[in-house]
Amino acid sequence: METNYKILLQYDGTRYDGWQKQGNTDNTIQGRLESVLSRFAGCPVEVQGSGRTDGGAHANGQVANFKINGNTKPEEVMEYLNRYLPEDILIVKTETVDARFHSRLNAVSKIYSYRIETAAKKDVFERKFVYGLGKQLDLERMKKAAAYLLGEHDFQSFCSNKKMKKSAVRRIDSVEIIKKGTKVVIRYQADGFLYNMVRILTGTLIEVGLSDREPESIKDIIEAKDRQAAGFTAPPEGLCLESVRYEKE
Amino acid sequence: METNYKILLQYDGTRYDGWQKQGNTDNTIQGRLESVLSRFAGCPVEVQGSGRTDGGAHANGQVANFKINGNTKPEEVMEYLNRYLPEDILIVKTETVDARFHSRLNAVSKIYSYRIETAAKKDVFERKFVYGLGKQLDLERMKKAAAYLLGEHDFQSFCSNKKMKKSAVRRIDSVEIIKKGTKVVIRYQADGFLYNMVRILTGTLIEVGLSDREPESIKDIIEAKDRQAAGFTAPPEGLCLESVRYEKE
Repeated sequence: METNYKILLQYDGTRYDGWQKQGNTDNTIQGRLESVLSRFAGCPVEVQGSGRTDGGAHANGQVANFKINGNTKPEEVMEYLNRYLPEDILIVKTETVDARFHSRLNAVSKIYSYRIETAAKKDVFERKFVYGLGKQLDLERMKKAAAYLLGEHDFQSFCSNKKMKKSAVRRIDSVEIIKKGTKVVIRYQADGFLYNMVRILTGTLIEVGLSDREPESIKDIIEAKDRQAAGFTAPPEGLCLESVRYEKE
Repeated sequence: METNYKILLQYDGTRYDGWQKQGNTDNTIQGRLESVLSRFAGCPVEVQGSGRTDGGAHANGQVANFKINGNTKPEEVMEYLNRYLPEDILIVKTETVDARFHSRLNAVSKIYSYRIETAAKKDVFERKFVYGLGKQLDLERMKKAAAYLLGEHDFQSFCSNKKMKKSAVRRIDSVEIIKKGTKVVIRYQADGFLYNMVRILTGTLIEVGLSDREPESIKDIIEAKDRQAAGFTAPPEGLCLESVRYEKE
């Protein structure tokens, strides 16, 4: 008998090469989890994440699942993980779920946040989780631009993966642009995100906020279906996967 | 003509040997400030802090002052400091003050906070600024104990410096014990603090919260005027100098 475990976890991604396991030079969140779990189970365990996060990006509410033979209590699995994982990865919740549950395939929407410091220097306690832009942003212009992103579009222009053969159509449900002191936080909710999409959306919105680009240009960028039409890829440290939603939640 | 500058600064003290400059192996906040300022001024500049902070402890609102020949605008001094200081030290405010202002001698009270995580593992984003106790605390017992600390007492029992010849009498104005999720934050306000005082007060309150010590024992500890009578010295990472108050503020 196999048990399917669903975990909710947070990580400071500063020193990792992102979520997804990479052959030999493995320094990833997935790799760390699998290594501890395989030791626990006494045989290889494969961990499915709700999606990849970039090298240097963080998660406050990543979701993953994995199967282990037997019926060990979820609390016991969680305690073992938290005992042996490094201090920059924390399992917040563990529960047993239906065998058919898959953290990526069953996800219906995700929320990412992106933090930008407009002041010259970053708050020292948050410096690893904020992008230090060091310039003022015009939020009204950014909000105008963000409105063009809402709804279902082909977001090919906002994707770094040139070889992508699958559909680049995604539905963005909301883009909130919030001022917090000298920081600007952008929260994106969508049914899914393409490779580097949040960082390119953010880079483009920043260019609008700096008046290097018009809010209305978003329409043309989407239509172009060309990465070159969009703005720069904002750096990973400001990016955080906040939460993943599933049906019946 | 000399100008006296007062600065408000924050720092992540994780990698430093505390505030106070130390001869040869200088890896201190004061040392970093003096090194940048001396380069700016073209001659040695001495920085006076409102008080020392321990190695590994943090500051959200440390105050210091220093004198430089000429009348450079405070904004210019601040910009230079923030450009050349490492990213774990941030000057938040700089102003010119009367030549007689001294950040330590003129301070009338200080607020320190101490953060304790009672859950098994620390939040990854705050892990360097919180002490990972990993045990439940009885806050009612701690509040009872804290009440005995209020007012003017000889706090010799809460001081690590055995050779101290000066008075150990201090006035504690308030000790707030606040629950924030699984964290407990203790905020101390006093007219001044002895060497390691906040960390020993905290270690003692933790022992009361763990029921290893009675709340009423605080009276005896104070009377003993003996470091051995008090609890353990809580580690530096949970400690943060929040603010320093001056007259006419």
